[in-house]
Amino acid sequence: MSTTEVKVLGSTGSPFVMRAVIALNIKSVDYELLEQNLVVKSELLLKSNPIYKKIPVLIHADKPICESLVIVQYIDEVWTCGPSILPSDPYDRAIARFWAAYLDDKWFPSVRVIVLTAEGDEVKKETLQQVATGLELLEDAFPKCNKDGNFFGGERIGYLDIALGCFLPCLRVIEKVHNLKLLDEAKTPNLCKWAESFCSDAAVKDVIPETDKLIEFAKVLIAKIKARPSN
Amino acid sequence: MSTTEVKVLGSTGSPFVMRAVIALNIKSVDYELLEQNLVVKSELLLKSNPIYKKIPVLIHADKPICESLVIVQYIDEVWTCGPSILPSDPYDRAIARFWAAYLDDKWFPSVRVIVLTAEGDEVKKETLQQVATGLELLEDAFPKCNKDGNFFGGERIGYLDIALGCFLPCLRVIEKVHNLKLLDEAKTPNLCKWAESFCSDAAVKDVIPETDKLIEFAKVLIAKIKARPSN
Repeated sequence: MSTTEVKVLGSTGSPFVMRAVIALNIKSVDYELLEQNLVVKSELLLKSNPIYKKIPVLIHADKPICESLVIVQYIDEVWTCGPSILPSDPYDRAIARFWAAYLDDKWFPSVRVIVLTAEGDEVKKETLQQVATGLELLEDAFPKCNKDGNFFGGERIGYLDIALGCFLPCLRVIEKVHNLKLLDEAKTPNLCKWAESFCSDAAVKDVIPETDKLIEFAKVLIAKIKARPSN
Repeated sequence: MSTTEVKVLGSTGSPFVMRAVIALNIKSVDYELLEQNLVVKSELLLKSNPIYKKIPVLIHADKPICESLVIVQYIDEVWTCGPSILPSDPYDRAIARFWAAYLDDKWFPSVRVIVLTAEGDEVKKETLQQVATGLELLEDAFPKCNKDGNFFGGERIGYLDIALGCFLPCLRVIEKVHNLKLLDEAKTPNLCKWAESFCSDAAVKDVIPETDKLIEFAKVLIAKIKARPSN
């Protein structure tokens, strides 16, 4: 596979870009990561994703695919020779899709609010509770999804592992900046073990950004938000 | 297929329930529709969808599947002998998934706001513009998705047809209550023709609720919302 055939428009540290990159790594597909300037957006990004103008975009054989979960499913369906990312059983696939949609629609918005709360500023109890509740639901779902193996997908990383795992760096940022414990041996023992397996997996370990770098990145974003004129 | 094996927890008029029912009709699967009381929720609904407590839920062989787009994909993957709902080409599948997610995440919230605006009350220009913009985007996407045939899915109703088509009754309610034109021969000729084909399809025609019944239903909802104590 030539590196020119598969491109990812992305940015280091974006959880959604991580999803595309991990899926490509699982399938051993070579790709070129085109780092995007998210303030002055490139012509290529605007042309490739005119609806959302957001990363990630996967460009395969000159055709753009947008939205991280759509991209992961596309990668699974195109490179069928590599390990499967979606479970093979339709019911298991439905469960994985359900939880992945839950993460993006209901859970991550609360995570995002806390990541964008400056050090020393109050984290609302309600928001923190929403994050904790989501983790408890996933803790409970883990043994139901996974009859054996270290991952939601079983013995190998699958769709839901990618969907949740890309948010682990955000959780680490929250834990460090706000001196909180989110993944906890007592409350979420399955997820603690899962997170360790996930981060040390060959398809993932070079993709996870350093927590301190992400904290710096979050600080820049927070400063930008605070500098905006209020409505 | 015995009718007891496939159940849909639903309610007449819900666009999301329509998706599950149309998909089952396409596959010629017999099912039992269990009409749900959405004020006092049944034990079965609460047990089957403990996260959202919402319809539709598909129960197949005693296992619940939630979220309408997850359900449609599940139906397509389980009853493979019927006509395919998702396109066969991975890129076409990605495009269909992208637009279906766009409809639910970005477009329908504005439609919902207008449906829940009482007759005579002002419909905000901005909200109306969001609905119109979405329709123009879909109008433009139609010939790209569909090389031949009457549907986004080609010659037969597919995933994106179901995702968008289930909202047609809501558009008709808006048009009638607020005396507006949303689907328009001049601006959205492709969608006008498509809507006609969609509503007269064998899998759909008995599922589309009457506009006047939906208007009555919307009135009850509006009255309930207005009766709530404001925060």
